[in-house]
Formats: sequence, structure tokens, C-alpha cells
Amino acid sequence: MNNRLMRVSESLKDAGLTQMLVTDPSSIRYLTGVEIEPGERFVGLFLSEEQPKLIINRLFSTPVQDQEILWYSDTDDLAGLLASLCDGGKPLGIDKQMPARFLLPLRDRLPNSRMTLASECVDWVRGVKDENERELMRMNSRINDEVMLRTKAFIREGMTEKQVAEYLTAQYYDLGCESVSFDPIVSFGANAADPHHMPDSTVLKRSDCIVVDIGGKKQGYCSDMTRTFACGEASEKLRSVHDLVVRANETAESIIKPGVRLCDIDKAARDVIAEAGCGEYFTHRLGHFIGTEVHEYGDVSAAFTKKVEEGMVFSCEPGVYLPGELGVRIEDLVLVTKDGCEVLNRVAKKLEIVG
Amino acid sequence: MNNRLMRVSESLKDAGLTQMLVTDPSSIRYLTGVEIEPGERFVGLFLSEEQPKLIINRLFSTPVQDQEILWYSDTDDLAGLLASLCDGGKPLGIDKQMPARFLLPLRDRLPNSRMTLASECVDWVRGVKDENERELMRMNSRINDEVMLRTKAFIREGMTEKQVAEYLTAQYYDLGCESVSFDPIVSFGANAADPHHMPDSTVLKRSDCIVVDIGGKKQGYCSDMTRTFACGEASEKLRSVHDLVVRANETAESIIKPGVRLCDIDKAARDVIAEAGCGEYFTHRLGHFIGTEVHEYGDVSAAFTKKVEEGMVFSCEPGVYLPGELGVRIEDLVLVTKDGCEVLNRVAKKLEIVG
Repeated sequence: MNNRLMRVSESLKDAGLTQMLVTDPSSIRYLTGVEIEPGERFVGLFLSEEQPKLIINRLFSTPVQDQEILWYSDTDDLAGLLASLCDGGKPLGIDKQMPARFLLPLRDRLPNSRMTLASECVDWVRGVKDENERELMRMNSRINDEVMLRTKAFIREGMTEKQVAEYLTAQYYDLGCESVSFDPIVSFGANAADPHHMPDSTVLKRSDCIVVDIGGKKQGYCSDMTRTFACGEASEKLRSVHDLVVRANETAESIIKPGVRLCDIDKAARDVIAEAGCGEYFTHRLGHFIGTEVHEYGDVSAAFTKKVEEGMVFSCEPGVYLPGELGVRIEDLVLVTKDGCEVLNRVAKKLEIVG
Repeated sequence: MNNRLMRVSESLKDAGLTQMLVTDPSSIRYLTGVEIEPGERFVGLFLSEEQPKLIINRLFSTPVQDQEILWYSDTDDLAGLLASLCDGGKPLGIDKQMPARFLLPLRDRLPNSRMTLASECVDWVRGVKDENERELMRMNSRINDEVMLRTKAFIREGMTEKQVAEYLTAQYYDLGCESVSFDPIVSFGANAADPHHMPDSTVLKRSDCIVVDIGGKKQGYCSDMTRTFACGEASEKLRSVHDLVVRANETAESIIKPGVRLCDIDKAARDVIAEAGCGEYFTHRLGHFIGTEVHEYGDVSAAFTKKVEEGMVFSCEPGVYLPGELGVRIEDLVLVTKDGCEVLNRVAKKLEIVG
């Protein structure tokens, strides 16, 4: 934790800031180990040149850690309390999440302190996983591989998407997970052309494609993987789209190493698909960062020009979606190593016939 | 919808505002019928003296309604777009939810427009349900009554809390609900002394108290009710605490009518419990507003001095929690009528022996 706080402190210095109020519960947990889901109430971590201070509502009990904690009640003047922590003459870094109901009253109390968005000072540090986190990401992807294999073996023609989703959800609990890391996507046939289709009562038919996009959460860390299967047999079209998407996935993964820009990884996959004339059917970014949250700060997209660093974990998930027909997505998590990347998912990518 | 917009417009005028940016997805749905869950992206409804304008990311499809829609892309200058809608010389009402990542860039573009919290102008209008909403709240509470009766009939000594929670969750789907309105609370014995205990593998034993706090969601509206039962037999202590909590619940419900302050309803219940010497064991507010969200703006608590109006729906849920021993909570939803209130839940409140 201390190492994490020191890295954030360096980032703040680089951004010209001496103080910041962190309000994102997962960032607070990352930096202090204190886990609070405050609902509509305020929870904060005030960072400055002094000791970090947690600000917590008395309604939430927390095992006392090493941190200094300022407790407040619903009837206290919270904005006044927060303002009293700040140097009112200097800019104040603010978290991207902080809602207006806390931000505007604090602004009123600090008329001479300019609030400035500073989430990146925390989020970019979170993007680089330490050794312990890397192990947790590996372990979670092992579990995800196992759930994918069980799901593949379970699927039969005539089942509904919901049935498959319920089965695979139970597998995460069976394997000791706390929860799924997001609502599983199971899409049959034309449903798969919508990348975010939610499982419904659609019945699996012979020659349908089957997109399975799933993840679990154990010890607070997430997994996320997609494979696409065919039921009974695969049409020529499905075979060729599947081959193309696997090629895009593997091409992108092959160039990942420290120093490469995230936008260039996106481009590597996109070029493969565009050259095959399918560019317009790859409608989303290539990937996202992941850790204690399934979507963390950091995109693998054309808009994100930052460079990859050792220890980052993100998804590589090209897809091709043909409206009314089919969809194919192949997704792995990758962990950036000293001179390349470790693909955390090991389930085979070649098109498998199931059911 | 037009009537709702007109009521909000009146509220804004009363607050001295000519423009407001609404960003809470449930408020946007309430005012326009457009339902978008934007995740990390921005969705907004700009209210001014002109036609309301929706601001939506192109990633979200929405059936075109009567509203004017401004579409933007991830690569567009969103803050610039929002600023162009506003009168930069006048104050701008801001939603309580708007996160810093959208608020601070907009502030930078509108240096002469003071941002001010104006959620209440929408939320207090949402608090008063119209005829159609009242029917939906009644219908949902009918379903909730039915689930409570089924649950009561299902419970047997030796079952786990999780088993009961799973059974009752399935009943909502069986009765046509979209979902539960919150994770059901089923607490046995000493677990019930924690008002927010989550169902675990605790096994029901003879003479345990059983707190069942549940709700479903159908056609977008929520229900919420609590009953407390005893397994096989009830101790004298459980009987007397249960009687006390029923009395607090009924006393509070008996004084609800337009013009009464919400804090006085809380006090009516609290006084009954305090007079019996149990004041310190009633640790939470008496109730909360409810509608499309299970917790909406508006509290029945000592801190909330606003007056009740016809058409409001809120919970009345006193409880007594004896650490290490037992807990009892009795909760109904009430709908304020012209001269009193309609209690939306009809499951009997006297202590029933189950299992």
C-alpha cells in the first residue's frame, strides 16, 4: 500500500498538485485496503504532503487499519470538514467520480482553490499491477478458462441462452469466486451481431454461432474472456469470419510490449479486419484495462495514445458483427511483460463445434 | 410527460433558474420516457425556456420519441457541445449525480455561469406520483404481498437464509417481474440484529426470529416490504418486541396525511419505541421515498422537515435490533391520499409462527 501511495504522490507532483481528494471506492480500496461501498453517502481519501486521511460516515464500520480516519455523521457539515483539510490557496485534485452533490458545496467553501480533474494520477498507477496483483489476475484467468471449458461441454442444441448463462454463473461459485465480474453474455446466431446482447430465451439451433463472453471475481480481482463456437456445424461464412477474428486477435497480441502505444495495438487488429473488407463490422474498441473492476481506466483504442508499461493488464477482443446473421468475438486478457506479453487465457481459439 | 416537465419548469422558476442539466438516468427516463444506462458515458437532458434537448452518445440506440436529440461521439468535444446549449451569463442548475469528469470541463467552458445544485427541482416533482404511477405502485405491492405469503408458506426449520432468498427471488419472476428491486434480506435469529445482513448459509432453528425484507420491479416500478416471523415458537421477548414494532408502525401510519412533516412521522414511530425503553435499538430512519428506484430522494427522518403531499409514496419501517439476540422490522409502503394514507401492503402484521 505504501508503495502505491508513493507512486500516486509522485504522479501528483508531476501534475503540479499538492493535494487531492480521492472518492472512487475502488481507488480508496487500492490505496488503503479499506473497502466501503458508500451508496449515496460520501467516502473520501485526502492525499497531501502529510499523512493520508480517510473520511468515512459513522454508519460504516471498518476494521481500523493504519490510516488516520475522520468520522462524520449524517448531521455533520461535511463540506466544512472537507474544506478544513485543504489548503484553500492551492489547487485541489478531484476524482473523476465525485458527484456534484459533494463537489459543489465544497467549491463554495474553497473559493480560492481551483478544482482540477486528477484521477489519472491514481488510475494510471492502478493500471500497472504489482506482483501480488499479477498472481491474482493469473489465478482468475485460470478459473475463467475452466468455466469456459465446462460451458463448452455443457452446451446442447435446444438450450436457451439464459440456461447456459445460469449454468456458467453457477460454475464461478463452484470454483470459489465471490461473484461474476459482469453479467455473462451468451448470444446465439443473429443475436451475436449485437456485441452487448443479454441472454434471453432464444433457443440454440444447428449451425448457429455461439458467443460466450464471461468473467468471474475472486479475492477482489476480475477475469474476462470471450470465445465463439458453432452448434453442430459451421457455415463457410462463420468459418471465414472466425478465422479472421482469430488472426486479428493474434496479430494484436504479437506486437504487445512495453513502449508500444495502445492505439497502435488497436490499429494492428483493426488493419487485419479492414484488409479483409470487414472494417465497418468491427464496431468497438479493441480492449480495456481490468483489475479490481472489470473496466478500469485505460483503453486499447484509436483515441488512447499512451504507451504500454510492464505489468499492465488489458483485454484484446476484436469482433466482427454481421447484422441479422452472426457475430464473432475472441477475447483474451494479456499481462505486459518485460519484452512482450503473457496471454492469460489458454482456451484454444480455433473454431470448435459444440452441442 | 409534458405535465411532468411543466411541474419541473415551475420548480426551476421558484428556484430562480432558467436552465438546468439533468444527468440522472432515472430522472431523464421520468421526464422523457427515454431509458439509457450510459455506464461511464454522458447522457443529459437540458432544460431551459426552449424545447428540452436530450444529449446522447451515438453508441446508444433509442427509439426516437418526441424529444429533440443531440447525438455526440466519443471523439467529439462534449464539454463544448454542452456549453453551446447554455446561456453563459446565467446560473446553471446541475444534477446531484453529475460526476466531476463532466462537471469540471463544463465549468471551464462557462466561466461566467455559476453552477448550482438543483436536483430537488426534479426530485421533489418525482416524489409526487401521478395516477398511472400510483396504479403501478399498487400493482407492485400486490405482487410483493403474494411473494411474502408464498415465502411464509415455504419456510421450514433447517433451511438456510440463502435457500429462502433464492426461492422468493424466483417468485418475482414467476409473477412477471423484471427483477427484484434490491437483493432480498432474509435474516435468522441473531443475524436479524444487523438491519442489512445479507443471506448466508445460516440454518433456521426453532424459536429463531425471521426477518424478510423484499421487493420486486415490474413495469419499471418498485415494491418494498418487511415482515418478521418466528420459527416454531416465539419467546416472550420476541413477542413483546414484535408487538412494540407493530405498534410503532401503525402509530406512524395513523398520522400520515398531507401537511404533516416527514420528521414528525419518524418521531411518532420513534416515540413509541423510546417510551418502551428501546430507543437506542431503533438505529435507522423510519423510511425512504420509492418509485422507479427503490431509494428515491426524500427521507422519513428527523433531518427531513418537508411536508407530506398527496400522491407521495414512501416506506414506514420501524425496527428494533438487539445485538446477538434478534431483530424485528415491520415495513409497509404507504401512498398519501387526500386526507390520510393508503397502506399498500396487506399481509397481516401480527406475529405468525412458521416452519
